[in-house]
Formats: sequence, C-alpha cells, structure tokens
Amino acid sequence: MLENAITNKNKSFDYKELTKELEKNLSALQQKIRDKKLPVIILLEGWGASGKGSLIADMIKMLDPRFFKVYSTMPATETERRYPLMKRYWEKIPERGSLAVLDRSWYQELAIAKMEEDISDSEYAQRVEYVNTFERQLSDDGYVIIKFFLHISQKEQKKRFLKLKEDSTTKWRVTELDKKRNKNYDAYYKQFDDMITKTNTPHCPWKIIDTTDRAFTRFQVFNILVSQITNAVNIEKPAPVIEESAHIFKLAAKPKLADVSLENKTMQPTKYDDELKKARKELAKLHGKIYKKKLPVVMVFEGWDAAGKGGAIKRISYALDPRGYEAVPIAAPDKHELNRHYLWRFWNKLPKTGHITIFDRSWYGRVMVERIEGFTSEERCAMAYREINEFEQELTKEGIVVLKFWLHIDKDEQLKRFNERMNTPEKRWKITDEDWRNREKWDAYEKAVDEMIAKTSTVDAPWNIIEANSKLYARIKIMNIIIDRLNEQLKKMK
Amino acid sequence: MLENAITNKNKSFDYKELTKELEKNLSALQQKIRDKKLPVIILLEGWGASGKGSLIADMIKMLDPRFFKVYSTMPATETERRYPLMKRYWEKIPERGSLAVLDRSWYQELAIAKMEEDISDSEYAQRVEYVNTFERQLSDDGYVIIKFFLHISQKEQKKRFLKLKEDSTTKWRVTELDKKRNKNYDAYYKQFDDMITKTNTPHCPWKIIDTTDRAFTRFQVFNILVSQITNAVNIEKPAPVIEESAHIFKLAAKPKLADVSLENKTMQPTKYDDELKKARKELAKLHGKIYKKKLPVVMVFEGWDAAGKGGAIKRISYALDPRGYEAVPIAAPDKHELNRHYLWRFWNKLPKTGHITIFDRSWYGRVMVERIEGFTSEERCAMAYREINEFEQELTKEGIVVLKFWLHIDKDEQLKRFNERMNTPEKRWKITDEDWRNREKWDAYEKAVDEMIAKTSTVDAPWNIIEANSKLYARIKIMNIIIDRLNEQLKKMK
Repeated sequence: MLENAITNKNKSFDYKELTKELEKNLSALQQKIRDKKLPVIILLEGWGASGKGSLIADMIKMLDPRFFKVYSTMPATETERRYPLMKRYWEKIPERGSLAVLDRSWYQELAIAKMEEDISDSEYAQRVEYVNTFERQLSDDGYVIIKFFLHISQKEQKKRFLKLKEDSTTKWRVTELDKKRNKNYDAYYKQFDDMITKTNTPHCPWKIIDTTDRAFTRFQVFNILVSQITNAVNIEKPAPVIEESAHIFKLAAKPKLADVSLENKTMQPTKYDDELKKARKELAKLHGKIYKKKLPVVMVFEGWDAAGKGGAIKRISYALDPRGYEAVPIAAPDKHELNRHYLWRFWNKLPKTGHITIFDRSWYGRVMVERIEGFTSEERCAMAYREINEFEQELTKEGIVVLKFWLHIDKDEQLKRFNERMNTPEKRWKITDEDWRNREKWDAYEKAVDEMIAKTSTVDAPWNIIEANSKLYARIKIMNIIIDRLNEQLKKMK
Repeated sequence: MLENAITNKNKSFDYKELTKELEKNLSALQQKIRDKKLPVIILLEGWGASGKGSLIADMIKMLDPRFFKVYSTMPATETERRYPLMKRYWEKIPERGSLAVLDRSWYQELAIAKMEEDISDSEYAQRVEYVNTFERQLSDDGYVIIKFFLHISQKEQKKRFLKLKEDSTTKWRVTELDKKRNKNYDAYYKQFDDMITKTNTPHCPWKIIDTTDRAFTRFQVFNILVSQITNAVNIEKPAPVIEESAHIFKLAAKPKLADVSLENKTMQPTKYDDELKKARKELAKLHGKIYKKKLPVVMVFEGWDAAGKGGAIKRISYALDPRGYEAVPIAAPDKHELNRHYLWRFWNKLPKTGHITIFDRSWYGRVMVERIEGFTSEERCAMAYREINEFEQELTKEGIVVLKFWLHIDKDEQLKRFNERMNTPEKRWKITDEDWRNREKWDAYEKAVDEMIAKTSTVDAPWNIIEANSKLYARIKIMNIIIDRLNEQLKKMK
C-alpha cells in the first residue's frame, strides 16, 4: 500500500494557487456539514516528522473553530487501560454536524503497538478487527471518516530530524525513540504497510500522501477533503448491506416467549428467605474476588413493564460493595446522545476492571421501543443485531463478563401488577400512561423480543429468559445465574 | 467541635428497633426526593477504621440502586492536578432528584492535605474558602448537603486496627500510614477540629458522630438523614440573602454602554493586514510560551448578536496550535445540564495547565438571556453576580488568566449586518428569528449588560468593552489586549 503514494507531481501546475481555491471550498463546506448534520472524522497517521502538526494547522485555518475539535492521541493512561481498548476512542466521536481532527488515533494501537509493545500476533489481529468494526459501525451510521497516512522515505525523515536538531528551539522535538525508529525504518515500513492493507476497507479507505513536497501535499490533502465531503454532503449513501447475525456469530438457541412455561415457577417465602440469604452471602464474597482479580462485569436487565427488574436489581445490589458497582437506568436519549452513534452512551458507561455496571434497560431499546415506536428507521434497527453482537463480543473479548436477563411475565400477571400499582399510593409513580400504551402493543413487542433473543443470544453473551410471574422465584434464579457465571469465569482465570 | 459528639446513649432505648423504623422512612423519602427534584449529597469523612464503609453499605441498603451513586474520593491523578482544585468535585455533583454518597470528599484537600502534603497556611485558608463557597453555591441552588464526621478516640482506633490485623482477610487494610496517623492522633485531632470549625456553616453544618457503638451510630445517622431530608422535602427554603458583589469584590469601573463612543474606531484594511500579521505572530509565540510555562487561559466572548464574536475568535484561533486550545460554543443548556447547578457545564470545560478555552457565549447567559426571557427566577439571576465573581476569582486564584470581551455595536450597525446576512445566501444561516426578537428587546438587554458589567468587572477579571462597529478595529484591539495580558502574566511568572 505505502508504495501507492503519488510522488510525480505535474510541474506545469501551480499547486499553491490550486490549493487556495480548495481552501475556499472547504470553508464553504462547513455550513453544509452543519446543515446536513454530518459527523466527520479526519484522522492523520504517519511517520515522525512527516508534517502532521503543520498540516493540521493549515487544514483548520479555513474552519470555524467552534465547529471542530482537534484531539491528540496520547498513550493510554493507567485508568484508560482498565477499560476495553476502544472505549477512549468511542468517547470522542464527534456530534452530528461537527468535525473531529485526530492527530494520531486508534491506529496507534496497531502498528506502533506491535513494534514497541509486547503484543502477540493474535492480539494484533484482534485489534485490527476492533478497528474495522468501529469504523464500519460509524460509517453505517452516517459518519464520514477520512484517513490519511503521511509518508516519507527513511532518507527524508533523517534529513528532517537533522534539520530540527540544528535549531535550538526545535531540537527537543527529536527524541531517542525517533532516532531508533528511523534506524529501524524498514521494519516499521513493513508493519505500517500491513496495518494499512488490513484496514483499507471500502467504507474507510486509506489515503497515502507522500509529504516530501509541501505544496503538493497540501493540494492532495485538500483535494481529497473537498471531494470526499462534497460527495458525502450531496450523495445519498447506498444502504449498507445488512448481514444476518447468524452467519457471523455463534448463537445459543433460546425458546420463543410463547414456549416458555410460567407454570409452577414459584417459591415459598420461607424458602426464598433462606435462598436469598445464601445467594447474597455468596455474591458478596464473589464481588470481593472479582475486585481482586480485576474482572469487569456487565449485567443487562430487560423485560416486560412491571416484570420486576427494579426489585431484582435491588436484591443484587444489596449484596455488593457500593464502591464497586453502578446501576445505570436507561431512559430516552438526551439531545447530545441522539447526536451521536447510539452505542456511544453505553460505551461511556462500561465498567473498569474489577467493577460491575448494571444496566436497567439497555442498548436493546434499539430493537424494541425504537423499532416499534418508529423512532429509528427499520433499516437502522435491522442493522442493530449485528452491531450489538459485535459490541458485546468486543466486551467479552476484552475480558468483561456480559450477563443478560429477559424478565418474562404473561399478560394477566402484568395487568394484575399494573392495577396493584394504580391502587397503591406509594407505587403509583411506577405506572405511567406509556406503560398502558405499551401494553396495547404486547403482540408487536413479543414478536420483536423473540427476534431479538433469537438474533443476539450469542454463545459468549447468551440471553437468560427468567420466568418472573413469581418475583421471588425470579430473583433467586437471577442471582444463582450470576453466581454460577462468575464462579465459572473466576475458575478460568486461575 | 469534635468534642460535641454524643456518647451518652440512653440505655432504655432499643436503638436497633428505632433504626429499623428510620430505615423505612428513608426508603419512602426517595420517591419524594425524586418528585421534588431535590439533589442530595451525603458525605462521610472521619478517622481511619471509624466505619465509613459499612455505614455506607447500611445506608444504601434501603435505597433504589438506580437512584444514587457512591463515589470514593481518591488522591487526584496527575491529569486532575492540572485543573483547578474543585473541578473534579464539581463534575460529580448529582442531578436533581438523585443522591450522591461520598466516601471521603473535598475535605481530603483540607485537614489531611495540611497534615501530609506540603501546603502553606495561606493555601489551606484558600481551600477552606473554596469549599465554603462551593457548598454555599450548591445550597443556594437547592442542593441538600449532609456532612458526617465519624469520630473515634485514639484508643478505640488502635483497638480496631489491632482487630483488623488479627484476621488474615482484613489485615491488609491497616497500612503504615494508618499506624502513623494513630500515633500522631493529637495533631490530626487538632487539624480536623480546625477544619470542621471553619467549614461548619449555617447552610451545611457538620454532624459529628461518635462511632464507638455501632447501633447508636446507625440510629444517629439515620435519624439525621430522615429529619434533614424530610425538612428539605417539606419546607420551602428561606430565600438566601443576596449580597451585593461590590461589597465583596474589588471592582474595576467600566463605562455604561451608552457612554462608549463608537466614533472613529475604525481601521484601514492595509493597516489591518499589517497589524493582524504582527499580532498573529506574537500570539503564536505566546501560545508556545504559555504551553511551556503551563499557564492556563480562559477567554470569554459576549456581545450583541452580529457583533463579530465568531470572526474575532477565528482570527485568534488561527494563531494558535490546535492541540492547545478549544473553542466552546455555548447554546441553550441540554436537559442533563439544566438538571444541575448552572455553573456545572462551565466547570467541565475549563482548560488544563498550558491550554486555552475560548467560550463563545458563557455563564453570563445567566444574567442576560435567562434573565430577560424569564428562564430563571429573578432571585436566582440576582444571585449570579456574586456566584460568577466567585467562580472567576477561583479560576484566577488557581492560576488561570481570565479575559472577558463585550463586543459592542450600535443598533444601526446591527440592522445593517442583519440585513446583509439576510441578503447573502452563504450567511443566511447566521440569522434567525430569535435574533430579530432579541433585537426588539435591545433596551432591556442594554440595561442588563450595563448591570452585568458594573457588577462583574472585577480587578482580576475585568470586562473589556470592544468598540466593534468596525470589525477590523475590533479584532486588532482584542488580539492586542490578549497579547498584553499574556505577556504581563508571563512576566509575573518569571
């Protein structure tokens, strides 16, 4: 790939003049980006001294500073290392209608990491997959990602380092690491080339720019920016191909809700008290263990309205050290959340190592309420199964235990609970008009839930359907599933 | 203060039973907190082994886990140290209708820091003031802050440490530092006592709890929680006394807008080009210097609609390294921002050392648009002058240079620019119906701006009124003010 950089400029052109025209175009495109609510990511990777800094400065000279943000990617801090690799990149995706310029990016986790940190081939391959998934998911959501690799030869780099070192005000910029990298140029070249080849996807292709000539570099970069953004603004993206999850992920078959028997799934209060005490004690012990072993855990609670999610979460959390878990209720997204990829707000809430996040409702809203109420297009909803599986797969690969519960009650039981809530003053706040409206759509929801469970019950993050007509039975079943799963995982870690 | 802890419990009471009743009350109060949208902060400080952890566990046992968050205060990270001291505490204030439980808090920056870090008496006094201001501002905004100090004697502490050390599963919890602190008990006692005395304010009084007896401790703590929250829920807070800013802050007198002459404040384009080039070069150099000297800078741009804020910000930012500044446009607050103290979203955007944040509109919206449009009560708006002065004073005391600009044009010039925007297709997006509506309220705004400038032009963060009928003149004037101020500050730092 790297050899594809264009070096033979046309000597009869005045590239400086041509670039001026492009700069004006770029400036005018800003407003269109805003109008179309297009989120744009421009990322720059490349050799040391290839001129990223000055190129970024030139790039944004024509832009309204209130409309873009420049991010410099630094090595991950100790705290950042306690989260899944891609979390810190997810956090910084721009809002729709604005632009992020990345001075280095997630690509630092690939070639440079492979060369300088102790990561295995399989870890490297894994990271390549994370990056490709990340970019595809953003691209499918309308993000425009323009990737530049700034290329220079070993000789040119050496020359630039020497020049920087000559000047007392710039010599600090050349480090020992830079010299080492220059000496080792061929090995880095090979690794960069490998990385670029493996991440050169149709939706996010690389642009390799030879930066030996400053004017020609600028012309090429601005030309690409203007043409790519113009395209994105004017041309409706072709609908992405929706791949069936089942072809990509190993699924753990689950029954349809209609086939889940709720009969006899009850528990006597005295037995419940015993079981609860036992489970609580066990869970408290496990919480200490996962803290010490630095095992992160995500629990997802979904279910019919009034199925008892809150009560179950409460019983679990009583057993936990409050400093080691967080319960996150998911409501309708706020404006700044709607303005980004829908997974953004969930990435932001992931637990660090040794901690637990309990989601009360979750990203599955995408294929339930958002789908049924028509908040999101059918097409985007259909893509969510794969996106969600990829998301959860990434979490499990990064070491997070993902536990998902669907609390299942039947229609009669729901009516009984709704009425009870209506008739008990302290509970009335729990029941809203929306609950009654949702109830009318029971059949549509049931169909959606069946599809969701069928398509997202992966082997690594399977759904647990909990018979919840009896709250006592349900709570104990949930706690025991959690206990078994954590024990199993801890055993594996030994 | 510490000697005020109650130790003589009434032996005829069954405190365990009494506490059970209180627990139920506390559980019921949650819903009221939610209904009344009350933000509640419960913080626990105290001696090592005084039982904070288990008390917190008992406290939240009765609460819905989706409704509170527990924060453990750790020593500031290196990154956190690059921001004003109170920023990381501001970031974590709860949303209205929810509850934050703090396991240690900003008080770690006082007594413990005074004992164990190298902070001077004046720095300590300064921090006491920060804390009192922080709590008063939150309290004035309706936050309920309940502060517990868990107290034990030197002997009791020693006993507890020994007991912890006996058990192999708990012995790691007793550190060398703990032992040192126990040995040095009297000195710590004195310092804690001093801290508590100085931060025992009418709006946020301390509750000192002797925790020698577990049941009695719980009874006292739950009793206080229930009574304080019940009060907060049921009793309308008396309106806080609004203190005139002028009595507290040194003000730098500025003219009324009507007395600012806009005549002859123009600049020839050729002169402008020269001046701009000069200023840009100087500013670029200064940006490098402030980066090296780790000087943080905040710039605030306010002004009439179409006064040229955007254009001025653009000219400044061209001179800056994009990796070292951020331009933050301030629009109407989002829901999650409205749900917190209004200064919260600005605290979140402060620059770290060596960086610049440029605010395009700012916290001054409080005393302009929020006041004139009636979004905020007259009373809360009136309190903002002092709050804002305190906020900016804290920034300047923490080493941030605060530069504030009011871009002033007259009514005719605004009309001319509005019409020009209407008639230029590329500029039409800049003009909205709201701009025309605001224009109709010119007189009300002028009065508000005059009052704002009079009351918030402090000596350390004075307003700069910029005659902006000529954009060229205004931009150069602004850049030169910035250059002079930064040079002055850098000189002081030498």
